[in-house]
Amino acid sequence: MKSELNSKIWSNSARRDNGAITIGGCSVIELAEQFGTPAFIIDEADFKARAKQWKSGLDRYFATNAGTAYYAAKAFISRDVARWVAEAGLGLDVCTGGELAVAIAAEFPPQHIEMHGNNKSEREISEAIDYRVGVIVLDSLQEIDRVARIAHAKGVVQRVLIRLTTGVEAHTHESIKTAHEDVKFGFSMASGAAWDAVLSVSKHESLQLIGFHAHIGSQIFATDAFETSAERLISMVVKYKNEFGTEITDLNLGGGYGIAYTESDEPITPEFALERLSTVVNESCKKNGISSPKISFEPGRAIVGPSMTTIYEVGTTKEVRLEDGSTRWYISVDGGMSDNIRPGLYDAEYSITLANRVSSADLRRSRIVGKHCETGDIVIKDVQLPSDIVPGDLLAVPATGAYGRSMASNYNHMVRPPVISVLNKEARIMVRRETYADLLALEIDDD
Amino acid sequence: MKSELNSKIWSNSARRDNGAITIGGCSVIELAEQFGTPAFIIDEADFKARAKQWKSGLDRYFATNAGTAYYAAKAFISRDVARWVAEAGLGLDVCTGGELAVAIAAEFPPQHIEMHGNNKSEREISEAIDYRVGVIVLDSLQEIDRVARIAHAKGVVQRVLIRLTTGVEAHTHESIKTAHEDVKFGFSMASGAAWDAVLSVSKHESLQLIGFHAHIGSQIFATDAFETSAERLISMVVKYKNEFGTEITDLNLGGGYGIAYTESDEPITPEFALERLSTVVNESCKKNGISSPKISFEPGRAIVGPSMTTIYEVGTTKEVRLEDGSTRWYISVDGGMSDNIRPGLYDAEYSITLANRVSSADLRRSRIVGKHCETGDIVIKDVQLPSDIVPGDLLAVPATGAYGRSMASNYNHMVRPPVISVLNKEARIMVRRETYADLLALEIDDD
Repeated sequence: MKSELNSKIWSNSARRDNGAITIGGCSVIELAEQFGTPAFIIDEADFKARAKQWKSGLDRYFATNAGTAYYAAKAFISRDVARWVAEAGLGLDVCTGGELAVAIAAEFPPQHIEMHGNNKSEREISEAIDYRVGVIVLDSLQEIDRVARIAHAKGVVQRVLIRLTTGVEAHTHESIKTAHEDVKFGFSMASGAAWDAVLSVSKHESLQLIGFHAHIGSQIFATDAFETSAERLISMVVKYKNEFGTEITDLNLGGGYGIAYTESDEPITPEFALERLSTVVNESCKKNGISSPKISFEPGRAIVGPSMTTIYEVGTTKEVRLEDGSTRWYISVDGGMSDNIRPGLYDAEYSITLANRVSSADLRRSRIVGKHCETGDIVIKDVQLPSDIVPGDLLAVPATGAYGRSMASNYNHMVRPPVISVLNKEARIMVRRETYADLLALEIDDD
Repeated sequence: MKSELNSKIWSNSARRDNGAITIGGCSVIELAEQFGTPAFIIDEADFKARAKQWKSGLDRYFATNAGTAYYAAKAFISRDVARWVAEAGLGLDVCTGGELAVAIAAEFPPQHIEMHGNNKSEREISEAIDYRVGVIVLDSLQEIDRVARIAHAKGVVQRVLIRLTTGVEAHTHESIKTAHEDVKFGFSMASGAAWDAVLSVSKHESLQLIGFHAHIGSQIFATDAFETSAERLISMVVKYKNEFGTEITDLNLGGGYGIAYTESDEPITPEFALERLSTVVNESCKKNGISSPKISFEPGRAIVGPSMTTIYEVGTTKEVRLEDGSTRWYISVDGGMSDNIRPGLYDAEYSITLANRVSSADLRRSRIVGKHCETGDIVIKDVQLPSDIVPGDLLAVPATGAYGRSMASNYNHMVRPPVISVLNKEARIMVRRETYADLLALEIDDD
């Protein structure tokens, strides 16, 4: 039955065993009984393997020019995950004080933390510098002055990157967009704002410019946009050398590597991307007569996305007759837009499978919906599922690791699901399920 | 300066005083200093006035046929708000155990609670019956059996409504859609499913069918769709009388009354809608030779939407040159998609105003963005704002009461903003701001 669980979509240890899906050797039936549903199941070995794949690929293809693979905390972070990231030799990309707080609580090595954000508060900058984060990515002229002032007051010389808008943008099924400048992030190379930022940083003794950063999009399935962006960053290194006589040592090519949510998605492997980009970077640097800088990346979804699976229980089913005379089966699960906002927010598509048993029943046209009081609360718009699915059955949605739990809300006062870590037939709670008491805990009662 | 704060958009007590906006007599400058930003400010008097408007309109136009105006908890609920709702003589519409838990904690009169939901769990149904909620709205055949079984086991006869799909759907700028059946909610009248549900309910002695429910959409600015839906519900009352010889006593026409987010929105008043609908209902019942049933409604957004205002502080500003040679000013605030997902989720539009002072500077084309690590994190896409806005200025976004805080997330490990209640120059915390410690509180640490 393994073949049904397409390995490009599912976490590595997902199997069928006596009909039920197991992850990390744990049956979803037992997981649901022990921890309830809905629940996020994170495959610890899968996460660590994907993290190491980035680390080893970076070391292999960039060798002495290997920078850091920064895990993007926004995809999903907890203290445990931060420790896994550190153990795998990756850095951590944080972009708020909250994400930094998790890193600090996990005692994440500060020199391997990169701080992002288009609007870091004074408090956040101060907390980052106090923890001695390795690098802060600067995003506006005001922020350059702000970070310089706070670092100066603390007697620190802060290593910084400048985030550039290279004019390259890419997403899943789109061709590369160029001249895409209408975004909140970064300094435009085309307008000259990028060079103004370089000059501004150079005036502050409390800032040490180590390089440039660019992020070009999300869910990208090809390397060409990364290559173009890398070449543009290198042109800034050349300009910098010409003007200042010294070489920039670091380039960060950002994140955005796509994963497979459905059979039709064809992601590239880290190895493929890293090999291709190392070639492009080295050739471009050689051609321009500069040393190759250290190259860093920011995989987030590409690591945790496929590592997590959501388990739902079916609550109700209903046949609805459509205008064309056909019927659609509505299957309601015990979660929805509060634990996965991506279908609503981005029209994101997911896969789904009957998880507690196999069925040889005929397939029928189904829509998986959540339990929120909202018509748009749809998990999967259109999918063929066995016609004998009944309340109590379990459904599994793979590849929910990125942004599922991290964007979860309490809409409709739903309690947010737990994250259960599985490894070698052992399951443990990494993030517990909320309770009704939690929902009331922030209220300052006036009674 | 009052005229600038269009009363159809802003909560009733919003004013300018020495340049700064005050709500409930409290200056946004002092609110920001005392409670921090971002913050939701709820105008207590405004909320109560809007709630009473629905109650008095219902009593006035429907008189002896006035049912209940059920405040839809999903828009925003807390114990205090539940008490305000009860004091105003409204009922409460809950659709999860979490929303019910707030009602129970607030000791909300159970007979005035209506329980909704397309996938109520056994636990939720049990909790609702134990609290003796006034009515449960049934949404699927499985649920009819489920509620009947649980009520029977508890020795209770539960009053129920059947949710119907009337084939009418309406939204803001769309004309009425008819034959819209492809939704998760309700039993289709057209397919015969609705009548099957009536027959199913009639077989259970533990269920007392008191009426029918229909919900036709959201942000609706006209009454015609409600009228059509009401007439279709009445046709079911007629059919029921013909078949069973008795009359259905209750109809619930649902919610969906629109509010003004921008100058171009023209919502209808409760009085206008209620007067019009009472006429339609009474005429239709008379024509069909049946008594007029009691009529209920479910305003949520229409009450709390305009009562709340979000206060943000500007963190950074940046000029971006667009492809056509023009420029756009990006203004970053200290919140974003974690406290207002509606612009991302529904392309919802909002208004925004410089709140801590007035400015006579030239206006410039601006985009208000949040601080999340995401390009789509936009609060307001395109707005003309004074060109002298700088970091530290406060911006106010009115009409964020519905779904702002209730759909809030911790995306990017942002702490969720507080809800501050203001009344007669006094401000108090209704829901406190989260802390970094709260962000870590659900983790079961493996260290």
